[in-house]
Amino acid sequence: MKALQYREIGAEPEVVEVETPEPGPGQVRLKVTAAGACHSDSFIMGLPADQYGWGLPLTLGHEGVGVVDKLGDGVTGLALGESVAVYGPQGCGRCYQCAQGKENYCPRAAELGIAPPGLGAPGSMAEYMLVPDARHLLPIGDLDPVANVALTDAGLTPYHAIKMSLPKLVPGSTAVVIGAGGLGHVAIQMLRALTPAMVIALDVSVEKLKLATEVGAHHVFPSDGESAERVRELTHGRGATAVFDFVAIQPTLDASHDMVAVEGDVVLVGVGAGTLPSGLLAAPYDSVVRAPYWGSRSELFEVFDLSRAGLVHVETEVFSLDDAPEAYRRLHEGTLRGRAIVVP
Amino acid sequence: MKALQYREIGAEPEVVEVETPEPGPGQVRLKVTAAGACHSDSFIMGLPADQYGWGLPLTLGHEGVGVVDKLGDGVTGLALGESVAVYGPQGCGRCYQCAQGKENYCPRAAELGIAPPGLGAPGSMAEYMLVPDARHLLPIGDLDPVANVALTDAGLTPYHAIKMSLPKLVPGSTAVVIGAGGLGHVAIQMLRALTPAMVIALDVSVEKLKLATEVGAHHVFPSDGESAERVRELTHGRGATAVFDFVAIQPTLDASHDMVAVEGDVVLVGVGAGTLPSGLLAAPYDSVVRAPYWGSRSELFEVFDLSRAGLVHVETEVFSLDDAPEAYRRLHEGTLRGRAIVVP
Amino acid sequence: MKALQYREIGAEPEVVEVETPEPGPGQVRLKVTAAGACHSDSFIMGLPADQYGWGLPLTLGHEGVGVVDKLGDGVTGLALGESVAVYGPQGCGRCYQCAQGKENYCPRAAELGIAPPGLGAPGSMAEYMLVPDARHLLPIGDLDPVANVALTDAGLTPYHAIKMSLPKLVPGSTAVVIGAGGLGHVAIQMLRALTPAMVIALDVSVEKLKLATEVGAHHVFPSDGESAERVRELTHGRGATAVFDFVAIQPTLDASHDMVAVEGDVVLVGVGAGTLPSGLLAAPYDSVVRAPYWGSRSELFEVFDLSRAGLVHVETEVFSLDDAPEAYRRLHEGTLRGRAIVVP
Amino acid sequence: MKALQYREIGAEPEVVEVETPEPGPGQVRLKVTAAGACHSDSFIMGLPADQYGWGLPLTLGHEGVGVVDKLGDGVTGLALGESVAVYGPQGCGRCYQCAQGKENYCPRAAELGIAPPGLGAPGSMAEYMLVPDARHLLPIGDLDPVANVALTDAGLTPYHAIKMSLPKLVPGSTAVVIGAGGLGHVAIQMLRALTPAMVIALDVSVEKLKLATEVGAHHVFPSDGESAERVRELTHGRGATAVFDFVAIQPTLDASHDMVAVEGDVVLVGVGAGTLPSGLLAAPYDSVVRAPYWGSRSELFEVFDLSRAGLVHVETEVFSLDDAPEAYRRLHEGTLRGRAIVVP
Repeated sequence: MKALQYREIGAEPEVVEVETPEPGPGQVRLKVTAAGACHSDSFIMGLPADQYGWGLPLTLGHEGVGVVDKLGDGVTGLALGESVAVYGPQGCGRCYQCAQGKENYCPRAAELGIAPPGLGAPGSMAEYMLVPDARHLLPIGDLDPVANVALTDAGLTPYHAIKMSLPKLVPGSTAVVIGAGGLGHVAIQMLRALTPAMVIALDVSVEKLKLATEVGAHHVFPSDGESAERVRELTHGRGATAVFDFVAIQPTLDASHDMVAVEGDVVLVGVGAGTLPSGLLAAPYDSVVRAPYWGSRSELFEVFDLSRAGLVHVETEVFSLDDAPEAYRRLHEGTLRGRAIVVP
Repeated sequence: MKALQYREIGAEPEVVEVETPEPGPGQVRLKVTAAGACHSDSFIMGLPADQYGWGLPLTLGHEGVGVVDKLGDGVTGLALGESVAVYGPQGCGRCYQCAQGKENYCPRAAELGIAPPGLGAPGSMAEYMLVPDARHLLPIGDLDPVANVALTDAGLTPYHAIKMSLPKLVPGSTAVVIGAGGLGHVAIQMLRALTPAMVIALDVSVEKLKLATEVGAHHVFPSDGESAERVRELTHGRGATAVFDFVAIQPTLDASHDMVAVEGDVVLVGVGAGTLPSGLLAAPYDSVVRAPYWGSRSELFEVFDLSRAGLVHVETEVFSLDDAPEAYRRLHEGTLRGRAIVVP
Repeated sequence: MKALQYREIGAEPEVVEVETPEPGPGQVRLKVTAAGACHSDSFIMGLPADQYGWGLPLTLGHEGVGVVDKLGDGVTGLALGESVAVYGPQGCGRCYQCAQGKENYCPRAAELGIAPPGLGAPGSMAEYMLVPDARHLLPIGDLDPVANVALTDAGLTPYHAIKMSLPKLVPGSTAVVIGAGGLGHVAIQMLRALTPAMVIALDVSVEKLKLATEVGAHHVFPSDGESAERVRELTHGRGATAVFDFVAIQPTLDASHDMVAVEGDVVLVGVGAGTLPSGLLAAPYDSVVRAPYWGSRSELFEVFDLSRAGLVHVETEVFSLDDAPEAYRRLHEGTLRGRAIVVP
Repeated sequence: MKALQYREIGAEPEVVEVETPEPGPGQVRLKVTAAGACHSDSFIMGLPADQYGWGLPLTLGHEGVGVVDKLGDGVTGLALGESVAVYGPQGCGRCYQCAQGKENYCPRAAELGIAPPGLGAPGSMAEYMLVPDARHLLPIGDLDPVANVALTDAGLTPYHAIKMSLPKLVPGSTAVVIGAGGLGHVAIQMLRALTPAMVIALDVSVEKLKLATEVGAHHVFPSDGESAERVRELTHGRGATAVFDFVAIQPTLDASHDMVAVEGDVVLVGVGAGTLPSGLLAAPYDSVVRAPYWGSRSELFEVFDLSRAGLVHVETEVFSLDDAPEAYRRLHEGTLRGRAIVVP
């Protein structure tokens, strides 16, 4: 079968012929119907050899949808031909965290050599993929694979980030989204669907602010040194009840800190890091800083239910598997509108 | 191997020789080290043929601990000889509820023919038992199997019942336990370990009230027509913040309804039913009535952690597998102190 | 000043001349700008003498908005002319419940002789009203008094009822509203604004079902013996995640019980009562029955914020104070569309 | 009457004769029965003139208990002679936060010139004190004023800090207390009373570690560069579920960050500040950093209920009002065991 692989540090990924995998006991083989390309793929392919730790060659793709193609011994409760989405942040399935479906926080995964598809294990950018256990497969029925595959990461990650802040997002509250790109434009829709909050979007790109407005932001601003002040004005001085920072570099962290309200949340979703002032005299009382990672299995069900209800929609551009390297080129250039989806 | 089976409607269970099972793909065979006998076993063996629906012959035992004896194809992450407890209320493992570990509420189990061990599937009252998936096995390390096996039901069930009421059980609150038997005496300990509430126990048996005091109840009363009034007195008229009714027959339901506070919880845990007045004019404002069933996978981890911390202890009497029928006789007579444990 | 009073058991309320009240220390006098007429007024005026306990004569009106007209000694932080809404279910202000703003559940109110305006204390159906403490007054700024006065009960009551169920109303969930009248049509809007749930409305009136659709219900059905079955069908057998029963008579209680899902909520909001089967064998596992009353002070802030955001709207018909008896006649006949508002 | 006042920047507080205050409308005068001395008093008296903003002369004392001595006009529901504790972080009483009893987070207090007693308004270190509204007074019945007065701050502050972390402090969890002094030794008791968590205490003082053990810590360690590693060892690598840092200077912030678990809480209670690494690549996933301030009105009720149940006890040394300056000297020297209580 054909697969898109990252084969050499610093090189572009390429389409190669590999052996079609056979499912062992408990495993399931999917015929892939859609695979999503993500910034984090670019991120790890940009790392030098001494920081790259995902093995080579690596079949890319941690967002995947397919149809059940072949069942390993002992697999029950799945029908051949069923359309399913793959839950990516797979864990051991047996520990305390996994017992709650929070496999994204499985403390045993590393030690057991378990990795997400496309981020260690062979991913979805191929004609077929193996899934180690049927529990990682969510039935998506007649949802369109291309339109929905990105929800497995670009939907699940903002959903998880938002979900913990929901009890604070009451009427009269304000949610700020920094970065209205692949994840941010989904976050805006989710905030509108799940809360009565006023939603403000910040970005450095005028086009992305336009997209933010189209998908439901009540207010949009350039993301700059005056963002915090503008949010304070719009909220009559109270500040933001929750800030979802999909950029998470030092300047956006600083802005988040400056705009958050007493008892508010600063949620850092982007693949970045920085430092923040902390303590009674350094931040609004009981304001929270946290950085979530991906999401839980049950949250992914909820994300697909949002889509089913027509409450969330991912912008996409479609590529064939042969053109997948081009998709990554465009992703790298920043010339995609929304998410690049590969259809093998 | 030897197994204790219920073989004929109305007859006593008997020890018989059956074939030792072989684990298929994904399955695990345990050598049983302890199995608990439960009132619900007696309950179903007391049902007439037209109400009995668990199949015959039925190897009893839905509380089980064992050591990993043999792994089916594809099972990883488990070591032979490891001591494990069996999570009983098994579900499909893949649906929304199971994705949160709430397999006790799996909506697909019935349709897929999935049943708990000892309640449809072959149970733990045997030398060996098969477990359909490694996720049902919780490592218990060096916890004593005999002392802890009953926690899989007699611990998990009250724990789940209590857990949802914890936010209400603040300082100054009152928890009432009706029925200080197998589950109730565990509930009392849990309430003491998990909350600062005043704990009141009610029972018709003087001996059980004595046990209730020994395991930590602050006050004990006979369970009778004056129970509600006494609880009102002790709480200066406010009533009980939460009532855990392990009997759940009409008289205890009525007492629960009469003693619960505004915004309080009536939690019906016993295998009973009745009717209750409901509505604005019929019950204290925002008081809640609910009837939970068993518990979730992650809650079972928490229950064993309570035991590990020395915060909960189950009274037991031990029987050999050959004497298991006698255990059920004693259970039926009500002459056991605590839980009957069978050691094959 | 003029006031609408209930003066004789069984008689119609009448407009009379009474003395304009003077605010004592800590009290505030409002010039009333709008007052709402409610079914519960009709309910208590329909009671025979031996069940009526609100005193005579009773100035009606427990929904009120006004402008601050005169301050008693010691009142600070309020400006004359400020537009404010009156929080009705007033408590002692000092106990544990009141310290959380849950004055609706104040256990000391009765003993201290504290009653809501219009339900014991003189109400808002008058040119002026006294409010015993400034904390009962919520600033509403430039919100229209007529359009918003009903939110103090017809908004706050469904809001409180819904708020506790919000954590369950995740994507993929279903909320059912029984009774799409004065409170129910507000509940539908709130469910749409606060949750991604599918909303189903049931009523015996075709017109009210039409209104339900207009304000956002996804599905509407006649409320009859087949309601539960239809809800099961629409939810693929799972049932309703939450049922808000604004009628709460035995037939709707039965339907609620029959349609609720495992872990679902039956919330009885109507001024009725009945009995329900309860217990492990009698209701879906961990389903909840509760009957809330009115709401808390902070919830009323949230309700006005919903209105400010344009997310909730109450249908109204306006009457002068002189015509207020007619408003109650029309309310009694059931010929009002939405809420009757009296403007003194 | 006599009062202890801070009268000159940099000088010691002194006992002076001032006029006995008269309660205005809505106000209450207490005869003080106990007043607590707190590190924050020392902190503000140590500030230079350009940073000191609490007015001069300042009657000290933000922890106070007294008996109701005289009622201003319009005050009802309070009996002369009743023993009451004063809720310190007073707000406007009317805003959204105050409507939930979270007056500690009132956004209007500053603008309205409202300050806590002893921190702007005249405090409890006097024979009499005025309280601006009866809602600030909690009845404490026959609780000993001297033993309990410190709970109004040294109890309420750790209680509030802990309360938000309770849902995470399940069986098997670990709570770390850094600083086992005035607030820390109360926090340890609260953690034992409210949770089944393993409690670890860290301090630089051997004596305070001894006190920590006496009041219930399971493990105690010196607070130093190896603290985090030791906590990791004790928790089998997982780290602390919650860290309560009552010191909150850069070294303890660093240790907190290094020892917290995935999804854990770092709660900064001390009057300090620093900076912390933040972001996906900089802190354990979904770990939380927050800094609470004092607590809410209803939480203070809960704290007194803990004391009533015998679950929390503050170490005290007693001083007369004339000796109060000596109490502050000893506090400054660090030679007190527990809290200094002044009895006028």
